[in-house]
Amino acid sequence: MKIAIYGYGNLGKGVELAARQNPDITLTGVFTRRDPETVKTVTGAPVYGISDIENHRSDIDVLIICGGSATDLPNMTPELAKSFNVVDSFDTHARIPEHFAKVDAAAQENGNIALISAGWDPGMFSLNRLYALAILPDGKDYTFWGRGVSQGHSDAIRRIEGVVDARQYTVPIPEALESVRSGSMPELTTRQKHRRECYVVAAEGADKAAIEKAIVTMPNYFDEYDTTVTFITKEELERDHSGLPHGGFVIRTGHTGKEGENTHTIEYRLTLDSNPEFTASALVAFARAINKMHARGDKGCKTVFDIAPADLSPLSGEELRAHLL
Amino acid sequence: MKIAIYGYGNLGKGVELAARQNPDITLTGVFTRRDPETVKTVTGAPVYGISDIENHRSDIDVLIICGGSATDLPNMTPELAKSFNVVDSFDTHARIPEHFAKVDAAAQENGNIALISAGWDPGMFSLNRLYALAILPDGKDYTFWGRGVSQGHSDAIRRIEGVVDARQYTVPIPEALESVRSGSMPELTTRQKHRRECYVVAAEGADKAAIEKAIVTMPNYFDEYDTTVTFITKEELERDHSGLPHGGFVIRTGHTGKEGENTHTIEYRLTLDSNPEFTASALVAFARAINKMHARGDKGCKTVFDIAPADLSPLSGEELRAHLL
Repeated sequence: MKIAIYGYGNLGKGVELAARQNPDITLTGVFTRRDPETVKTVTGAPVYGISDIENHRSDIDVLIICGGSATDLPNMTPELAKSFNVVDSFDTHARIPEHFAKVDAAAQENGNIALISAGWDPGMFSLNRLYALAILPDGKDYTFWGRGVSQGHSDAIRRIEGVVDARQYTVPIPEALESVRSGSMPELTTRQKHRRECYVVAAEGADKAAIEKAIVTMPNYFDEYDTTVTFITKEELERDHSGLPHGGFVIRTGHTGKEGENTHTIEYRLTLDSNPEFTASALVAFARAINKMHARGDKGCKTVFDIAPADLSPLSGEELRAHLL
Repeated sequence: MKIAIYGYGNLGKGVELAARQNPDITLTGVFTRRDPETVKTVTGAPVYGISDIENHRSDIDVLIICGGSATDLPNMTPELAKSFNVVDSFDTHARIPEHFAKVDAAAQENGNIALISAGWDPGMFSLNRLYALAILPDGKDYTFWGRGVSQGHSDAIRRIEGVVDARQYTVPIPEALESVRSGSMPELTTRQKHRRECYVVAAEGADKAAIEKAIVTMPNYFDEYDTTVTFITKEELERDHSGLPHGGFVIRTGHTGKEGENTHTIEYRLTLDSNPEFTASALVAFARAINKMHARGDKGCKTVFDIAPADLSPLSGEELRAHLL
């Protein structure tokens, strides 16, 4: 199958590298909003300007859209779903129903198939919430994120006066994880679930006390958390905090039995060295599924909930049953 | 939807209790090979003899077959798939292709749908092996079982002369789990992955040293493991070892990046107070999916790999997208 990438940032590069790990997938092009002459791909994949994309329709079974959820994807995905089978990683949870409706209309009208909100959250975490809820209806689930870099929180710190650069880690609190795993179904506050670690490069002569206060009291971002602020040099930031690790936990505990006397715990955990590369790897697997579904005549907008797991795999049903079941 | 249970042991009782937790599901009957007059259900569900089942076809959307994999299911599931939509938990991994072929032929010919090998392994563990392999093709996966009771190993001990009763726990070895989680992709021997704990009630005057030797040297069951044997009284066995806990881990680690420099770990973990009740809860969720698929015109034999996750849930697509994605 032939895929192409639309948008060449960290996620797009991740898709390029993931495609290389799948012998049944050929990356036919990278489409960029920049001048294509200025963009060099990691693997040597050809680069085109986005205005050129309609000329490449026959080279694209599935287009993986690697844009941001805030302003790119709400327009890009419905627009591109008119001409292509598409996959995106739209992750603004509250706006998923609206995004779904727009993409579904565009895809249905043109006989294409689209998958929105693939990746790990939304994505694999969502799937694990669904499976666990379906199996243990009498229970409670919890999602923890981290330890990992939150781009949104890092950006919020960078906007404070006197800050040159910053990296924010979201950290799940071990005691909260343990109380959840025990099956006691605790009610946990925001502060009890996660803490936030900030590594900040301050400008020369900046008021560090003022920066720290601005961070820890910032509404929504930090005020409901225990937050630590550590000032470091630009060199230390580059040396120790250049990666984009992330991950987390989806845990559901539930009861069964005559009197609910038996407790069960289902835990799904991701520990990721590179958030964008893992997300990209998931997008490529889901692109394979979308391609198979389109070949069977399916169209319209889908989510990970609609994808039969077998469609994610290059293996046949016989092979899967013989070796993975 | 209306379900019925075929076979009323630990698993059948679990299905009865699980059905009660799902308001959209009605249990219309329990079919037993015993004299139905002698069987009393936990919730008061009606009991019928198996010879009566054809008279209840209109009361059964999906029949959940709760028999053993060794001798019951290889015959029961293909036979019952001629008249009913069926779900089973066939768990003899090596014979799944053969079982699938027989059940598929019977179901296809009669316009029914069947799901084999649902539960947790095969079942949720299989799904996690598939998802993780699809996302991280350049990696390695590991399955650990326990801490939990192995019925097969407990039975093997009971067959030794001088043994009155026994319970065997399969225990994953923490150091092996840690080395897997680290991403080092170790090659692990059978002995390095699990150990076996045996609690044995010996007959009065039995030769305990001989029993212990017979256990730890038993080919296939124990000889490749570090096995401990503890003799206890019948009362201690009943007091401390009457449950059927189980669980385990599916872990895949894989690499991404330009030079494979980034490591990712996907871990799925179950901790179950009651193996049969959790398996039963999974069977009920998958029965819901089978019923939805049949209503859409699908037929033939399926496995968990063929089930779109949304079909497991009583919630609508809109509700799932709004609340779980």
